[in-house]
Amino acid sequence: MAGEMAEQPAVLRRILDEGAPRIREVAEQVAARSPRFVLLTARGTSDNAALYAKYLVEILLGKPCGLTSMSTTTAYEAKPDLTDCLVITVSQSGGSPDLVASTKAAREAGALTLAVTNNSGSPLAEVSEFHIDVLAGPEEALPATKTYTAELLSLYLFVEGMRGGSGVEKAKALPDLARSVLDRQSEVKALAGRYRFAERMVLTSRGYGYPTAKEAALKLMETSYIPALSYSGADLLHGPLAMVDNVSPVIAVVTEGKGGEALQPVLDRLRDRGADLVVIGSEDAVARASAGFALPTGLPEELQPVLEIIPLQMLAYEVTIARGQDPDAPRALAKVTETR
Amino acid sequence: MAGEMAEQPAVLRRILDEGAPRIREVAEQVAARSPRFVLLTARGTSDNAALYAKYLVEILLGKPCGLTSMSTTTAYEAKPDLTDCLVITVSQSGGSPDLVASTKAAREAGALTLAVTNNSGSPLAEVSEFHIDVLAGPEEALPATKTYTAELLSLYLFVEGMRGGSGVEKAKALPDLARSVLDRQSEVKALAGRYRFAERMVLTSRGYGYPTAKEAALKLMETSYIPALSYSGADLLHGPLAMVDNVSPVIAVVTEGKGGEALQPVLDRLRDRGADLVVIGSEDAVARASAGFALPTGLPEELQPVLEIIPLQMLAYEVTIARGQDPDAPRALAKVTETR
Repeated sequence: MAGEMAEQPAVLRRILDEGAPRIREVAEQVAARSPRFVLLTARGTSDNAALYAKYLVEILLGKPCGLTSMSTTTAYEAKPDLTDCLVITVSQSGGSPDLVASTKAAREAGALTLAVTNNSGSPLAEVSEFHIDVLAGPEEALPATKTYTAELLSLYLFVEGMRGGSGVEKAKALPDLARSVLDRQSEVKALAGRYRFAERMVLTSRGYGYPTAKEAALKLMETSYIPALSYSGADLLHGPLAMVDNVSPVIAVVTEGKGGEALQPVLDRLRDRGADLVVIGSEDAVARASAGFALPTGLPEELQPVLEIIPLQMLAYEVTIARGQDPDAPRALAKVTETR
Repeated sequence: MAGEMAEQPAVLRRILDEGAPRIREVAEQVAARSPRFVLLTARGTSDNAALYAKYLVEILLGKPCGLTSMSTTTAYEAKPDLTDCLVITVSQSGGSPDLVASTKAAREAGALTLAVTNNSGSPLAEVSEFHIDVLAGPEEALPATKTYTAELLSLYLFVEGMRGGSGVEKAKALPDLARSVLDRQSEVKALAGRYRFAERMVLTSRGYGYPTAKEAALKLMETSYIPALSYSGADLLHGPLAMVDNVSPVIAVVTEGKGGEALQPVLDRLRDRGADLVVIGSEDAVARASAGFALPTGLPEELQPVLEIIPLQMLAYEVTIARGQDPDAPRALAKVTETR
């Protein structure tokens, strides 16, 4: 897991240097077909990447968008009319039978299908009309890290391509910024100490940072086994806030921009409740919290998720080590999960 | 909370007797406009009702469907083209500013808008082209119970109406069945004992039962403050399963039908991991678990969610009492949550 986290700067650079032209080509072909609705299909870590893409599609493309409830196809055999729909299936392995079945059914139902995977020879890539390879190289650790950031950047470039741009220029600082974050391991290690005996964690964010909160919760659960709940800031106020007290650790992902602004009233409520609030965000946002990890500023808000998950991946790793467990061997999991 | 839970049979009967004709009329008017894509907008408990409606729309209507990421409109001011889209906003109070703003924006963007609320004089009902009143009567307890089942049944009748049917006949057993479940308080009380000292809970289901698992988790959190995580059975296998061990209580909602069948491999994995498995489902399904609550059989699968949440509402109530807390006064919450 540590080795694959460390590869992220190189993977991001590879996507920008080698992957971008092909992604743009696919985006132009898809855009020429003028899809009106977008559906995203994924599981686990890739589902968090799909949620990120949902924000991009709604905000940057202005197209209505939904996440697929896969069982409607695989268990209930629903036959929706998918004319004018673009169905994007995101999967590290491209191997889970339900993703393959659901994408195949979508194509038969008239959808334009695009697979975003780390395996161009996978069954998913084969059943899809279009395919984007996220070029992350083999991922062997059970907790997915480099394939997540690779999926995010590939999806970003795809959406920019759909708008007729390339996105490479805006993203070009990412590899170096990722490296600078990875170099701060001792800071993350210090932060990990406070979760040595945590019995639960709450992660929250809004807007572009929300998929980061969900992915961080998943990483923490599958490595450290700490029950980690994630909510959009607004949803947190609609009920789960009752669960947060002065012994509940909360991690907030505060993006620099509109998502972070919309999160401010939630952060105020959490401070009022005496929550232990750790912030991943700008230096200013960290200064107003109990502790945190300051991210470099100046990146467009829609690209910040690629960077802000990295300290949280590192945190999951360090918390797991601190608790005397092995992040490379989560119990009960297999690399390719065969759900149907 | 107890009083409002007990009103559910009467509310369900009122919807079937008095509400159904008006719901069918709205459904016919909406169907005549032939929406091609459905978006659902909601928060908290109503968001779980919206998720239930998503299954109905995809399976029974065969229309692609998504849940709205509200911040794309309220924070990022996205201006999607919503021609041919039906936007259904579900809200008990009809008062949250973000729901009103997002529905107003959807209408301006060309969407057909339908509000499903328990308050026909609410701002949300006013900004929406169509409105369905769920007729639950005033709800004063902070944990929403009767408005949830009222929203489910109203949404079911609406979707049946869109298909040109009425749904009343299929649903007519519900009020009596709900009464028979509510009468079994002592059984639920016995079940609640095992969660007296629980530090976390996992709820899972698949298909139509998945919204029930999510709503049960929310009820447990906002009343007992137990961190309750909910996953579709398939998503549980993609990571969070690592967190489940022989001291992790798991509650599975096993619908009688395709959702329950699709959940079987997940139940097998949970049993293998030594999880304490409590089942809400048929007598057979309960017999194969550590304990459970047997539901009456024979109801169409798409209507079972209206019934299966009731023992879980009762469980949240009884667990809270057992832990010496007050289910009517969850800390930190207000009845109308004003998120923006």
